[in-house]
Amino acid sequence: MHTPDTLHRRGLMFILSSPSGTGKTTISRLLLDADDELCLSVSVTTRPMRPGEVDGKDYIFVDQPTFDHMVEEEHFLEWAHVFGHSYGTPKAQVKAGLREGQDFLFDIDWQGTQQLYQKLETDVVRVFLLPPSIDELRRRLTGRGTDSAEVITARMERARAEISHWDGYDYVVVNDDIDECFAKVKEVLHAERMKRARQTGLIGFVRGLMKD
Amino acid sequence: MHTPDTLHRRGLMFILSSPSGTGKTTISRLLLDADDELCLSVSVTTRPMRPGEVDGKDYIFVDQPTFDHMVEEEHFLEWAHVFGHSYGTPKAQVKAGLREGQDFLFDIDWQGTQQLYQKLETDVVRVFLLPPSIDELRRRLTGRGTDSAEVITARMERARAEISHWDGYDYVVVNDDIDECFAKVKEVLHAERMKRARQTGLIGFVRGLMKD
Repeated sequence: MHTPDTLHRRGLMFILSSPSGTGKTTISRLLLDADDELCLSVSVTTRPMRPGEVDGKDYIFVDQPTFDHMVEEEHFLEWAHVFGHSYGTPKAQVKAGLREGQDFLFDIDWQGTQQLYQKLETDVVRVFLLPPSIDELRRRLTGRGTDSAEVITARMERARAEISHWDGYDYVVVNDDIDECFAKVKEVLHAERMKRARQTGLIGFVRGLMKD
Repeated sequence: MHTPDTLHRRGLMFILSSPSGTGKTTISRLLLDADDELCLSVSVTTRPMRPGEVDGKDYIFVDQPTFDHMVEEEHFLEWAHVFGHSYGTPKAQVKAGLREGQDFLFDIDWQGTQQLYQKLETDVVRVFLLPPSIDELRRRLTGRGTDSAEVITARMERARAEISHWDGYDYVVVNDDIDECFAKVKEVLHAERMKRARQTGLIGFVRGLMKD
């Protein structure tokens, strides 16, 4: 009989969305550092490689015709065109990982979330982070000090547009304090792993319990 | 605008089921001690009061005709006849509490779970505890040393019958270690509170974020 420690479970797709400036990137990094069962799926992109980035690790870098061909051939779970470049999540990698109990973190917007949800609804856990207030959001977006007023206004507009999709998520966490927010998001991840439907090893385990 | 701390949420009905001897009572007590937002609903029962019990606190004690009348008048969210006595959960108390953000813990079997789920599906969170092995379950049931072999055999049968309903629950936790199990159940409770659909205060909060 299997012991509980070896019970197999199906992986999940943990989606973290938020308007820019709400700490999504920080929370994602903290989660990935703290959790061995969680990883990023490596996205395919058409945007140019930046200094320090590694092809196949940070992204899979392709040209636009290659990307378009992958879209046509339905190689992506989701894809999007953002700020002039295309980004996509390759299907095969994630599907194989899920079967083996690997969890994937997705730091994507509401459109990507909808695409993933339509394709793999039961594997998807959707978490939305909200800023504690619009003033705090503006402060965070301005605080970087690297962008013009125009860019900040555009970003605020984009943030509002993103916020307007909050009701397409399973969980909502207000990020007032980064440690608290991280703890809460971790609780959601841990709880979702305990969902009966993901614990595929339970069937055999229960069969063992029913024997004399 | 509301601050996140005051965001209203609807309460939930946290159901903990397990075969006898799997630590459900211990976990329930730990949860109630640790969590101010969680309470037991006070059940109505026809069983005689035991020494130390307080009417209206431990149970609401009634006679059988009164109980039957309450069933007829649909005063119960769920009710059951167990070991010769009737037990029921009064509807009005729970419904009012849920509206005010009060969470209720239910330490009930699969039949009660089904009744609650049918009546208030979206408010119900169903958690099932499993023993780490059938040998360990037998040890725990025998360990009390107060019952005859016949009673223990009957209890094992009842345990198996209860286990057979594991797939009617949202979450399953194997109770190998009481502290670990408690931590896991707490994570489920906390995560469920973050479900978007329960956070009724979010609508007003988001409206505030969308204003300029």
